[in-house]
Amino acid sequence: MKVAILMGSDSDFPVVERCINVLKSFGVEVVARVLSAHRTPHVAVEFAMQAEANGIEVIIGAAGKAAHLPGVIAGVSCLPVIGIPIKSSTMDGLDSLLSIVQMPSGIPVATVAVDGAENAGLLAVQILSVKYPELRARMKSYKEEMAIKVLEKDRAIQSRY
Amino acid sequence: MKVAILMGSDSDFPVVERCINVLKSFGVEVVARVLSAHRTPHVAVEFAMQAEANGIEVIIGAAGKAAHLPGVIAGVSCLPVIGIPIKSSTMDGLDSLLSIVQMPSGIPVATVAVDGAENAGLLAVQILSVKYPELRARMKSYKEEMAIKVLEKDRAIQSRY
Amino acid sequence: MKVAILMGSDSDFPVVERCINVLKSFGVEVVARVLSAHRTPHVAVEFAMQAEANGIEVIIGAAGKAAHLPGVIAGVSCLPVIGIPIKSSTMDGLDSLLSIVQMPSGIPVATVAVDGAENAGLLAVQILSVKYPELRARMKSYKEEMAIKVLEKDRAIQSRY
Amino acid sequence: MKVAILMGSDSDFPVVERCINVLKSFGVEVVARVLSAHRTPHVAVEFAMQAEANGIEVIIGAAGKAAHLPGVIAGVSCLPVIGIPIKSSTMDGLDSLLSIVQMPSGIPVATVAVDGAENAGLLAVQILSVKYPELRARMKSYKEEMAIKVLEKDRAIQSRY
Amino acid sequence: MKVAILMGSDSDFPVVERCINVLKSFGVEVVARVLSAHRTPHVAVEFAMQAEANGIEVIIGAAGKAAHLPGVIAGVSCLPVIGIPIKSSTMDGLDSLLSIVQMPSGIPVATVAVDGAENAGLLAVQILSVKYPELRARMKSYKEEMAIKVLEKDRAIQSRY
Amino acid sequence: MKVAILMGSDSDFPVVERCINVLKSFGVEVVARVLSAHRTPHVAVEFAMQAEANGIEVIIGAAGKAAHLPGVIAGVSCLPVIGIPIKSSTMDGLDSLLSIVQMPSGIPVATVAVDGAENAGLLAVQILSVKYPELRARMKSYKEEMAIKVLEKDRAIQSRY
Amino acid sequence: MKVAILMGSDSDFPVVERCINVLKSFGVEVVARVLSAHRTPHVAVEFAMQAEANGIEVIIGAAGKAAHLPGVIAGVSCLPVIGIPIKSSTMDGLDSLLSIVQMPSGIPVATVAVDGAENAGLLAVQILSVKYPELRARMKSYKEEMAIKVLEKDRAIQSRY
Amino acid sequence: MKVAILMGSDSDFPVVERCINVLKSFGVEVVARVLSAHRTPHVAVEFAMQAEANGIEVIIGAAGKAAHLPGVIAGVSCLPVIGIPIKSSTMDGLDSLLSIVQMPSGIPVATVAVDGAENAGLLAVQILSVKYPELRARMKSYKEEMAIKVLEKDRAIQSRY
Repeated sequence: MKVAILMGSDSDFPVVERCINVLKSFGVEVVARVLSAHRTPHVAVEFAMQAEANGIEVIIGAAGKAAHLPGVIAGVSCLPVIGIPIKSSTMDGLDSLLSIVQMPSGIPVATVAVDGAENAGLLAVQILSVKYPELRARMKSYKEEMAIKVLEKDRAIQSRY
Repeated sequence: MKVAILMGSDSDFPVVERCINVLKSFGVEVVARVLSAHRTPHVAVEFAMQAEANGIEVIIGAAGKAAHLPGVIAGVSCLPVIGIPIKSSTMDGLDSLLSIVQMPSGIPVATVAVDGAENAGLLAVQILSVKYPELRARMKSYKEEMAIKVLEKDRAIQSRY
Repeated sequence: MKVAILMGSDSDFPVVERCINVLKSFGVEVVARVLSAHRTPHVAVEFAMQAEANGIEVIIGAAGKAAHLPGVIAGVSCLPVIGIPIKSSTMDGLDSLLSIVQMPSGIPVATVAVDGAENAGLLAVQILSVKYPELRARMKSYKEEMAIKVLEKDRAIQSRY
Repeated sequence: MKVAILMGSDSDFPVVERCINVLKSFGVEVVARVLSAHRTPHVAVEFAMQAEANGIEVIIGAAGKAAHLPGVIAGVSCLPVIGIPIKSSTMDGLDSLLSIVQMPSGIPVATVAVDGAENAGLLAVQILSVKYPELRARMKSYKEEMAIKVLEKDRAIQSRY
Repeated sequence: MKVAILMGSDSDFPVVERCINVLKSFGVEVVARVLSAHRTPHVAVEFAMQAEANGIEVIIGAAGKAAHLPGVIAGVSCLPVIGIPIKSSTMDGLDSLLSIVQMPSGIPVATVAVDGAENAGLLAVQILSVKYPELRARMKSYKEEMAIKVLEKDRAIQSRY
Repeated sequence: MKVAILMGSDSDFPVVERCINVLKSFGVEVVARVLSAHRTPHVAVEFAMQAEANGIEVIIGAAGKAAHLPGVIAGVSCLPVIGIPIKSSTMDGLDSLLSIVQMPSGIPVATVAVDGAENAGLLAVQILSVKYPELRARMKSYKEEMAIKVLEKDRAIQSRY
Repeated sequence: MKVAILMGSDSDFPVVERCINVLKSFGVEVVARVLSAHRTPHVAVEFAMQAEANGIEVIIGAAGKAAHLPGVIAGVSCLPVIGIPIKSSTMDGLDSLLSIVQMPSGIPVATVAVDGAENAGLLAVQILSVKYPELRARMKSYKEEMAIKVLEKDRAIQSRY
Repeated sequence: MKVAILMGSDSDFPVVERCINVLKSFGVEVVARVLSAHRTPHVAVEFAMQAEANGIEVIIGAAGKAAHLPGVIAGVSCLPVIGIPIKSSTMDGLDSLLSIVQMPSGIPVATVAVDGAENAGLLAVQILSVKYPELRARMKSYKEEMAIKVLEKDRAIQSRY
């Protein structure tokens, strides 16, 4: 089980790291790369074209502003591609979101929330769990633990009123 | 290979139908339902909870305005959930898009473009092809045919100038 | 006179607390819960379905981002439901606002301003005061006191120019 | 059981009529007025101030563009005030929505979706049903009928695939 | 020469003060008031209705969020009314701007930029200078001084490159 | 009493005409020009600079998209300048509105609603009426007639319910 | 003098054609291609990489929705790249505009207005005229003719009032 | 090789300086000016009209809010004009962007991202390199160095996972 996560700039790393941590906590192998659709287009395209042959099953692309990386990857690979819109210094991430989610017909990118790095990791796990039953099982546990944490907070609030 | 596609209202059907046609053209079995997160919440939740047991491997939810259906499904199922924001009479689909894509941490929805029904179908195929190699092969042919069509149009334009 | 206030996350509490304080200052009993439409959907739905039987007369839901909680509650309860859109780290609350206010026909949510927790409390009091004349009387006093405070500030400014 | 519905212009009537029809179908008496916050401010304010004395229990205000009518009513009445943002020729209703929902602290307006006239009527019924149990019962039937209609459409779609 | 400036809340004062300073620097008498369209509607309306009789020739209204104050004043007075949209904690002032500028036909409000308090003062001076030639003359000097300041900064930059 | 109205393109005329008609109905002399800030900048600037000498007391500028005309006029004239943002084929007039209203400190433009041509005319009348009492009187009649029309429509609606 | 114009889809041709006509009217040779950044990425990149060697001096890219074509070209070519955001069925072209204009540091795209195809052609002519004086001269004539047309329209309007 | 860069206010200088540094690093001569379209319109227009005669080959204009400077320059010069939208205190630069990019047909402004000063400098270099082959060569080196920096960061990330 191997997922590649590409970021357009190393300034995206503090957000992207949350995605890597989620994947690792599920026991998924991670290939992390800084590859820009604009500054290193040939390396990015070459990586995406070889990804399937290299045993990668899902690709995640994170980028800000005019965020083309996930779409460019999706253009040259048949693997499922997940896009993380990164909030940059202006526009509150709306530019990144629209640049990633509004893909034209024929080339989907599975888009998560602005800076939604954890959810990109979880979505990759859900996609892999179509094939790997052990990931499906771990995901069920993850959901249950998440619910338990909410219920603990719920009890704390209830005790106050 | 079975995909469920839920729409919040039958007025979404003209858009959703394009998704169904894509899935059928890839030989994927489709379960199509009109189930509202608000008007028939119990049936929608029950369907989503039983989906895995019923052999469904990916769920697609299409909804407009305050579009909660894909998120509600994702809350109760561990299957990958794809969201199609439907453009309604006002707001140009921005309300649907934000209601679907901005999911909180823990519960991802793989969001496609506003009215991006074909891409939802293709994304489901890409997700299934992690497990089913024959779908991966068909997807490669699909991409090649798509490129050939563009190149034909390219030749037509080139001949004019 | 009993009002339930549900928040999707305990990170919403600093805003929600202002609502609770308003309700308590009017002598309304408050049930405060952390219940997520996505992380604890069954508990949230169960709570909303039993609310009427438990003597609750108005439900307030506060949530951020793709804010489904008030709409999900409104889907399973016939009580009046008030929604508070919470501003999260991006989008300035526009995502929360549209996710709550743009409810489809048949399932209304009475929406207040982004982070408008006090107003959610006051709206609950106004709704209850349809039935309880003593609350109507207190609301009139509240409005008069509010006006008096403005007029004091007005005198302070007038004295400067 | 009496609800007043004020519209800022008679051009709002085609939308507002759907609200009136909902209220009448629930057996609620309706007072419908064309009263502008800007063109007939004194009549609008006078109406709102006398509303409680005239037996009105909920006021609905519908307005477009810089939509001040619901807020102005809420400033002079302690009754619950519902606001319907009307979509005008530009801005897709965003101007009306923000003008109505973003009320400052102290003066809430219960806002529904852009052009959400049916929901304004239903919300008024839900508010009245805090006091009138027969309306609560009718609302439950309404919800059940709504669910039955969705399930019929669901069966129609299921039969196609 | 007398101008009234009304603010909806004393929290608007730090912005409004810049407007007052501009007016005073032109020798215009200023009446400053904290009067809310929602919290003290009767006082605000009464003030606006008596403004002409009290020798006021232009009214300026500053307000944030669902900013109704300038429009409400314009509804009851025939004086020119200038609106200053105040940026509040969310929405970057877009809510205030649309609530003030999108006035329906028949009731104009002369709107300036978000937080554009100086310009509101200058616009009032320009309006008064239709009647008072001495203000026109001072405005010409003001413009010349403003240009001189820019040219000084221009020289400073030019000397660097 | 003379007002100049400049439009950036003759395609703006159908909207601008409503402004001219308002001014003429108040007996104000109108100078109408098609002058572009970009295509005929020297003529537009020359006109604005000579306007005061030519007896013009208020200038109205109407323009769409990157609507610079009113701001450019305001840069070279000390007369009050009113801006009408014209809705063009995309962006619903938001581009025109922001290009006109967000003027930097020092150079105000009195902005009305998108396509708010009538209000631009009425605002010009209100500005002139600071100097000309007969216009103030006519404006009061105008407001009364406007109120009477609303009240007639109000009676028509009341008679239906 | 040779300019390449690439469009992401032949559905963009009705807009793009206006750009081609402008270029031809200035005597600039045009190479028009339908090449998608997503559907035919290798052909698009290969074309852009060879453009300089093929005598092309400016590249124009037109695309809608998540409009990556101009940015992808700019990533692999050192020629000046002009981007035309095409309005698609939703979002009023805002998605295309932000996807093109918000390019990250290092890779500029010279962006024109949504559907601003004529201006893309004129900008290409202005860029070429840095090198070719005859184009500069024709551009001056073009501007003069444009001004004359406006002045003719101006006379027509003046004669009416 | 000479480029003029005009800024509407010296508060824009911290952003504009990045553009100047890029130009200087390419050996391009820079003329930097503080010239406002509104506060010093005659000087700005005169500068733009004389620019070509003064040996300037490209003009860059930077401005915020209702950012008219680049468009006003483009109206009176046939040189290529580049626009930098500056983010001001509200609206996140959307007002500046739309004021600059949405130019009407006939008068293009080559727009870069909000605060995209480096890219404005690079775009000017790309335009000049149509005429000056040595700049084209340096641009190729610049792109290669930029790619090398990304690849170094890529190696650093790869070594972590």
